[in-house]
Amino acid sequence: MYRTHTCGELRLQHKGTDVTLAGWVQRIRNLGGMTFIDLRDRYGITQLVINDQADAHIKNAAARLGREFVLQASGAVAERLSKNAKIPTGDIEIIVTALHVLNAAETPPFTIEDESDGGEELRARFRYLDLRRNPLRRAIELRHQMAREARSYLDSEQFLEIETPFLIKSTPEGARDFVVPSRMNPGEFYALPQSPQTFKQLLMVSGYDRYFQIVRCFRDEDLRADRQPEFTQIDCEMAFVEREDILHTFEGLAKHLFRSVLQKEITGDFPRMSYADALRYYGSDKPDIRFGMRIADLTGILKGKGFAAFDGAGYIGGICVENAAGYTRKQLDELTEWVKRPQIGAKGLVHVRLTGEGIRSSVDKFYTPDDLQAVAAEFPAKEGDLVLILAGEAKKTQEALGALRIEMGNRLGLRRNNEFAPLWVYDFPLLEWDEDTQRFYAMHHPFTAPKPDDLDKFYANDKSLLAQVNANAYDFVLNGTEIGGGSIRIHDAKVQQRMFEVLGFSKEEADYKFGFLINAFKYGAPPHGGIAFGFDRWCALFGGQETIRDYIAFPKNNAGRDVMLDAPSKIDAAQLTELQLELKL
Amino acid sequence: MYRTHTCGELRLQHKGTDVTLAGWVQRIRNLGGMTFIDLRDRYGITQLVINDQADAHIKNAAARLGREFVLQASGAVAERLSKNAKIPTGDIEIIVTALHVLNAAETPPFTIEDESDGGEELRARFRYLDLRRNPLRRAIELRHQMAREARSYLDSEQFLEIETPFLIKSTPEGARDFVVPSRMNPGEFYALPQSPQTFKQLLMVSGYDRYFQIVRCFRDEDLRADRQPEFTQIDCEMAFVEREDILHTFEGLAKHLFRSVLQKEITGDFPRMSYADALRYYGSDKPDIRFGMRIADLTGILKGKGFAAFDGAGYIGGICVENAAGYTRKQLDELTEWVKRPQIGAKGLVHVRLTGEGIRSSVDKFYTPDDLQAVAAEFPAKEGDLVLILAGEAKKTQEALGALRIEMGNRLGLRRNNEFAPLWVYDFPLLEWDEDTQRFYAMHHPFTAPKPDDLDKFYANDKSLLAQVNANAYDFVLNGTEIGGGSIRIHDAKVQQRMFEVLGFSKEEADYKFGFLINAFKYGAPPHGGIAFGFDRWCALFGGQETIRDYIAFPKNNAGRDVMLDAPSKIDAAQLTELQLELKL
Repeated sequence: MYRTHTCGELRLQHKGTDVTLAGWVQRIRNLGGMTFIDLRDRYGITQLVINDQADAHIKNAAARLGREFVLQASGAVAERLSKNAKIPTGDIEIIVTALHVLNAAETPPFTIEDESDGGEELRARFRYLDLRRNPLRRAIELRHQMAREARSYLDSEQFLEIETPFLIKSTPEGARDFVVPSRMNPGEFYALPQSPQTFKQLLMVSGYDRYFQIVRCFRDEDLRADRQPEFTQIDCEMAFVEREDILHTFEGLAKHLFRSVLQKEITGDFPRMSYADALRYYGSDKPDIRFGMRIADLTGILKGKGFAAFDGAGYIGGICVENAAGYTRKQLDELTEWVKRPQIGAKGLVHVRLTGEGIRSSVDKFYTPDDLQAVAAEFPAKEGDLVLILAGEAKKTQEALGALRIEMGNRLGLRRNNEFAPLWVYDFPLLEWDEDTQRFYAMHHPFTAPKPDDLDKFYANDKSLLAQVNANAYDFVLNGTEIGGGSIRIHDAKVQQRMFEVLGFSKEEADYKFGFLINAFKYGAPPHGGIAFGFDRWCALFGGQETIRDYIAFPKNNAGRDVMLDAPSKIDAAQLTELQLELKL
Repeated sequence: MYRTHTCGELRLQHKGTDVTLAGWVQRIRNLGGMTFIDLRDRYGITQLVINDQADAHIKNAAARLGREFVLQASGAVAERLSKNAKIPTGDIEIIVTALHVLNAAETPPFTIEDESDGGEELRARFRYLDLRRNPLRRAIELRHQMAREARSYLDSEQFLEIETPFLIKSTPEGARDFVVPSRMNPGEFYALPQSPQTFKQLLMVSGYDRYFQIVRCFRDEDLRADRQPEFTQIDCEMAFVEREDILHTFEGLAKHLFRSVLQKEITGDFPRMSYADALRYYGSDKPDIRFGMRIADLTGILKGKGFAAFDGAGYIGGICVENAAGYTRKQLDELTEWVKRPQIGAKGLVHVRLTGEGIRSSVDKFYTPDDLQAVAAEFPAKEGDLVLILAGEAKKTQEALGALRIEMGNRLGLRRNNEFAPLWVYDFPLLEWDEDTQRFYAMHHPFTAPKPDDLDKFYANDKSLLAQVNANAYDFVLNGTEIGGGSIRIHDAKVQQRMFEVLGFSKEEADYKFGFLINAFKYGAPPHGGIAFGFDRWCALFGGQETIRDYIAFPKNNAGRDVMLDAPSKIDAAQLTELQLELKL
C-alpha cells in the first residue's frame, strides 16, 4: 500500500503520528522558504509542509512539482498554526520528511476546481480530468449510494435482482431499437433492449413474484436535450398485487432513499392526483407541487362578454402570481412574448393586476369590475397579486398555462432544489386516437390493463367510450419531473385479445409481434404489475441538478457521441465483410 | 394483495388462522371425496384440502383444475393428520372455504419437478416454465445473494460502484467486438465492451481509487462449450496499491462470499502457487487442489535406459493413483486410449503397479527393480498404488498429465462439489512469442506491468531474456476453474513505451489503438491494478454445478441463439435502409 491514511481522515487526535499519504497536487504555495502543498484524493485534502529543516532533495523535488502531479509523502502530523475551518482536515498538516513523485503530470487543459475555467466541450473531451472535480465526484458517490440503498430496500422486501439479456430479439415495434449484427448468424441481428419489459413479465409467469434490476436500457432516437442513447432504470415487477400494493411498496422505496441518502424523513402518504386533475390544475401530467399557483378555469366568467379573442376560445384559464402586481409594462410585454414563442404557442397574454387602487386589467373595456372581482375570487387573488390569463383550445391552453406557471415559479425562486415534493399521478387514458391512421394506439404498451371500473366501456364498440377508458397506470413524479411509471398488466387472455382488437391487430399480427409472451401467458400467468424508475434522473434530482449528464460517469453528447472516445466511429472493411454487411451511404 | 401469506411460511403455530394463499397447482390428488392440492409459489408448497363440507361450487371448480393453474385459496390453517417431514409447511394444511381460479393453464410441455421429463432443447424454448423448477429457482436466488454480498463487502471496503458505457468505440484489436450501427451517425458504429478495462483505468486516473461494477460484457466469438456471448463480471480496480494489497482485498471478498452465501468459514490465507509450479506439479495454470496426486518429474530416473520412447523424450513425468494397483488390463487399456485421444495427444501410457508381490511395470525389460523403486520414491507411492507415466515435449506432457490427473480425480470421486479449494496463481509470463508473425504478444493486455524484479530483463534486447519476464499478474482459481484474473498495470510512461516497443507497435500505431488512454496517463496516473471475476461461473461453482447455463435466467445456446425469443433474427429492409446498410450474403 502506498499510504497509511487517506487525504480526508487525519485530525488533531493524530498529532505526532507518522503517516504516509498519496494523492494529487491541488495547489502549491511558497511562503518565506516554506512550501505548502494541498494534496488531494477522493476523500479530501491534506496540507503538506516542506519547511527549512527538510532535506535538500525534498526541497528540490518540491520545486519541480506542478498541478496534478501524483505524490507519495511521509511525515508527522502536526497542529496547524492557522487552522482552516472549511475542511475537515483543516486543523492539521504533515511535516514532510520523505517525498516521492509517483507520476508527473502535464498541465491540465482546465482547472480542477469546483468552478472550472473549462468549457463544456473541452471538459467532455477530458472527462477523466473533469471527474476529478468535487461536484462530479459527489455526483458519482451519490449515485453509488442511491443504487446501494435501492438494492438494500428491495432486497429487504424479498425482491430478487435478476439479470435479463442485452442481446435480444428486434421487434417490428422497435423502430428505435439499436441492432447488433451477429457474426455467427450472418444476416441476422440482435436488438439491444429499450427496457426489460417482456422479460420481467416472463419472470412473473415463472413465479419470481418480486423482481428488480438496476439495468442499462437503449434507445436509438433523436436526442432531445438531456437524453442519452443508453440510460439506467430501476426496473421492478410484482405478482399477486393490485395497484395499491405497488404504490405502497415503491412509496416505501422512495421514502427509504430520502431517508438514507438525503437524511430527509418524509412522513405521511405521498399526495396523489388523477391525470385529469393534473392537467386541469397544473397544465401538466407531471406537476411540480413544490408551489401552488394552481390554474383556475375562467371560461364561465370571461366568455361571451364581447372580447373576441376569448369569445372564440373553447377554454379560458389563468394563474395568480402572488405579489407581482407591480410588474412593469416592459416585464409584461416580455412575458407576452414568452408565451407567444412556438414552444408555448399562445396567441396573447391578458393580465389582471390587484393594486391598492383597485383591479386593473389589459382588457378593461370588455369587463366590468365585478367580472374582474369574480376572476380574482376564483384563486382567490389578493391585493398585490397579478393574474395571467390565456385562452384557446382547452388542453393546449392548460399546457401553456402549465408552462407559464413553471416559468413564474422559476422566476420567483419557488422551485428550490433542496425541497422535494413527490406525487403519484394515476388514471391515465388507456388509448390514444390517431387521426392520421384512424386507429387507437396504446398510451403505455399493449399489456397495460384497463381500470377494472372501465371494463364496460372497454368492451363497448364506441370510439368515444373507448377514449374514456382509463389505464390502471401510474407515474411517480418528483418536483415536476417524471421519475417512474408503471401499470398493472393484463393477465386475462380475453382482455388481452380485446386489447389487440381495439388496437386493430389481427391474430397473426399480434402473434408475430408478441408471440412468445402471449404463448407464455397460456401456462398460468399470475396477476401482476410493475414500475420502472429513471435512475439517472432520480440521482440528478436528489443531487439538486436539472441535468443528468453529471450523474453519468461517461455520458454522450446530444448527438449521441462520446467525444472522449470519439465513438461511434468507422470500422474497417474486413470487419464489415466478416459481418456480411456493406455501407450504403 | 391477493394473499395474506406465501406458500412457504405457515407452521403449526398458525393453526386456526384464516389465511389466503396464491400460487400454482403443483399436484392434485382425489382421495375418497377429498381433494388435496399442492399449491406452489417461490417460497414453498402448502397443501390445500377441499373436503366434503366444502361448497358445491368449490368442489366443481376443483374438479376442473389442472397442473400449473393459478389459484387464490382462502381457509383456516389446520394440523395435518399425516404430516410431511420433508417440507417446512408439512405439519399443516388449509381447509379451503373460498377458491378462485386466477388463471387457467394449458398442460406444460414438460413436468415442473426437480427432475423434469423435458429435454434440454424443449426446456430452453420454454425457459419461463423451466425457471419454475426448484433447481433453477435456487440458482437464481443464489446469484442474487452472491451479487448482494459482493456489493456489500466491496461497499464496506470503500469501493464505489460506477457504471461505465455499453456503447463504446470499436478498436482494431477488437476483432471479437459486437458492433452497433448508429442511425444518428450513418456509416459509424459503436462497439459493445468485452470488458470495462480502459474505463476502470481511466477512473483510477480520475482519482476514484476503489472502483467496482457487476457488469455485462460481450464477446462475438465461436462459442466453446459453456461460453455465452454475453456474460457478467465483477470488475474491480484499485489505486495506490501493490499486488499484495489486491490479493488481500479480494481474498477478503472470497471469504465473505464463502461465509455469507455458503456458511463456510475459511481460515488462514489462501494457498499461492507460481505459474511454473502449477504447470510442474499440476500440469495446468488452474490446478484443482482439492486432491493431491501431484505430478513428479521422472526424466532423471527413466531417461537413457534403452527404452526408445523415453530416451527420445524431452520430459518424462508421472502421477501416482492411490489404491489403484488392482486396475485390470482392460481398465489400463481404456486409460491408454483415453490419453491417446487428440484432446490429450499422448503417444502411450506406461504404468507401474506396486503390488504385494513387488513392483511391476509395463516396461519391465528396460528398467531394474531399483529404477522402479526410485520412481515410487518420487511420489512416494506405497503398496497398492498405481503410477501412470507419460513422456514427450515438457509443457505438452505436463498438460497431458494434468488432464489425466483431473480424469483420475473424477473417476475416484476426489472432486466433491461441496468442497472448495481456492488458490492464487501468480508470476505468469508477460509475453508470448509467436513463431508465425515473429513477434511478442501480451499474454494479458499491453497495460499489464512486468514484475519489478524483472525490469532488467524487460529492458534487455534479448528475446530469450524477454521471454523470461514475468507479469505482475494473478489468477484466482477455485476447484480447478479460473474464476478471476488481474494484474498491476503499468503507470510509468517509460515502461509503457518500452512495452509498445517490445510488442512491435510504432508510436502511431500505439496512439491509434490506445490513444485516449495513453493521453489520460499524461495527466497524473497513480499506481494501480485490478481484477475481474467471472460472475456466472463463480455462481455455478458455489451452486455445485459445472455448467453456467442454469445460473443465467435467459441464456443462449452454443450457437449464440436465444431459442425462446428466436434471436438473433432478420430485421426488415426499412430498418436496414435507415441504418444505411445492406446485407452481402
